[in-house]
Amino acid sequence: MSVITVGTMAFDAIETPFDKVDRIVGGSATYVAYAAANFVTPVQQISIIGYDFPEEEIAELRSRGVELDGVEVVADKKSFFWSGKYHNDMNSRDTLITDLNVLEDFNPIVPDSYQGAEFLMLGNLMPKLQLSVINQLKVRPKLIVMDTMNFWMDIALEDLKEVLKKVDVLLVNDGEARQLSGEVSLVKAARKILTMGPKFLIIKKGEHGALLFNENHVFFAPALPLEEVFDPTGAGDTFAGGFIGYLSSQKRVSPLEIRRAMVAGTVLASFNCEEFSVKGTTSLTSRKINKRCAEFYDYAKIPKLGV
Amino acid sequence: MSVITVGTMAFDAIETPFDKVDRIVGGSATYVAYAAANFVTPVQQISIIGYDFPEEEIAELRSRGVELDGVEVVADKKSFFWSGKYHNDMNSRDTLITDLNVLEDFNPIVPDSYQGAEFLMLGNLMPKLQLSVINQLKVRPKLIVMDTMNFWMDIALEDLKEVLKKVDVLLVNDGEARQLSGEVSLVKAARKILTMGPKFLIIKKGEHGALLFNENHVFFAPALPLEEVFDPTGAGDTFAGGFIGYLSSQKRVSPLEIRRAMVAGTVLASFNCEEFSVKGTTSLTSRKINKRCAEFYDYAKIPKLGV
Repeated sequence: MSVITVGTMAFDAIETPFDKVDRIVGGSATYVAYAAANFVTPVQQISIIGYDFPEEEIAELRSRGVELDGVEVVADKKSFFWSGKYHNDMNSRDTLITDLNVLEDFNPIVPDSYQGAEFLMLGNLMPKLQLSVINQLKVRPKLIVMDTMNFWMDIALEDLKEVLKKVDVLLVNDGEARQLSGEVSLVKAARKILTMGPKFLIIKKGEHGALLFNENHVFFAPALPLEEVFDPTGAGDTFAGGFIGYLSSQKRVSPLEIRRAMVAGTVLASFNCEEFSVKGTTSLTSRKINKRCAEFYDYAKIPKLGV
Repeated sequence: MSVITVGTMAFDAIETPFDKVDRIVGGSATYVAYAAANFVTPVQQISIIGYDFPEEEIAELRSRGVELDGVEVVADKKSFFWSGKYHNDMNSRDTLITDLNVLEDFNPIVPDSYQGAEFLMLGNLMPKLQLSVINQLKVRPKLIVMDTMNFWMDIALEDLKEVLKKVDVLLVNDGEARQLSGEVSLVKAARKILTMGPKFLIIKKGEHGALLFNENHVFFAPALPLEEVFDPTGAGDTFAGGFIGYLSSQKRVSPLEIRRAMVAGTVLASFNCEEFSVKGTTSLTSRKINKRCAEFYDYAKIPKLGV
């Protein structure tokens, strides 16, 4: 099985109440790729970078099983740059700087070598670009997962709705689910969004876990309780990477496997929050992941009671 | 088995974004008693009411198996009155009025007929009164659960710490856990609070569920997703009532049974949020509770994955 991931590869500068870093590796596709590669290879990356993206990171991605044929390198421009500052609760942040740089020219091209991939992860990007990737695929993947954000709901809602018609799973946060549906109740919001195209809706609530809606079912995966949340940047993308990576490693896509994939995403995201940049998921082993999974079960396994 | 509950029986006036009611029956002990009575009887109530507390409510409580020998009736004073207004998100509220009335004279007396009760639920009250109830019991109950609030941490912290030394389970919300411990991280807060006396700490997070800490274990019970949260007043007390009621109906108190009791509390609290006042839990049947439990498992049961 292989999975195509589309999104940004970038530099971030991050300030938390505890620390501050300048120009560390980030970007949605970077987080997704490292997380997914823990479950499946190859991960086939589609992105764009400038002359300044580190050689060592490219080498590291390759060593983890990430193919980069679909990553355009622009020789005379810088990579996408984002800078943000977290509030004291680590749950909210302000964006300080967004330098699009190479991202202004991004026109994702699916390499021939990626054709036939069975899974597609569309990272948060301009909806037209997400649609272009879907349209370039000669065989429709078994599963298409889409991330997006409120920004595109504000400025490109009709395009976004076109993409929605073509995807299987939509990933948004609670505020975005409310905005997209016009409903305050998440249960009602989900019901409406599930009429727009996706068969599954995942609503991410950060430290408050993630909800999965499909048909009349709701499933909840809580976030793991961490002693310290060091840096939550990329947690949503890491969740997405763990989610689609796990699914890609399985024989079938079923509602049960999708629930399991929520667990995989949750566990990977917990590692991400413990380190700056992608460091939380680049040196994981099956042993470490299994150990964290066991902790997760002890934490979240609901015992039955007979009343 | 029997359970003693101590707390207020009151009138509430509540305004939500959807509706407004004046002088409906409320009070921590009322919510606790109705919830607990779904699992165990008798529930032995200790409280104080004025001349205005409705006869019909007294009759209704009795019919559900609640004993009222420990409820003092003050002939020339009104019952405790609280009024609050919920914000649009239904997660936060402002207190508009607090008329203590009879509560100013509350001096809880344990009737002889309550002696020997194996479970004690100390509702949120002045810590000195909670301590007085513990000290009146000739045989120490098998399990003492204590609720409290930030108000007592502000004005009676030393008394509160005395009570803490004598209880098995403490129930607080996340802000109160942080205030009591001086730690921002809930994991660190719990570790500190567990050195103050209780063997179990439950941190209630409203719509974001509840955490249980004991020794090195953490367990999480998510709140059920409701289509509409009609009125969350009393949800915490209903959780407490379901929690101690379920435990009282079991042969043993063990960490596993305490996890199950969290599920019972969660399920009862979900009913509470669907109606004003105590109406959500006064007409429940085992059948309704079991049906909601089954929904809860479908929602929160974590599937295992092999990585």
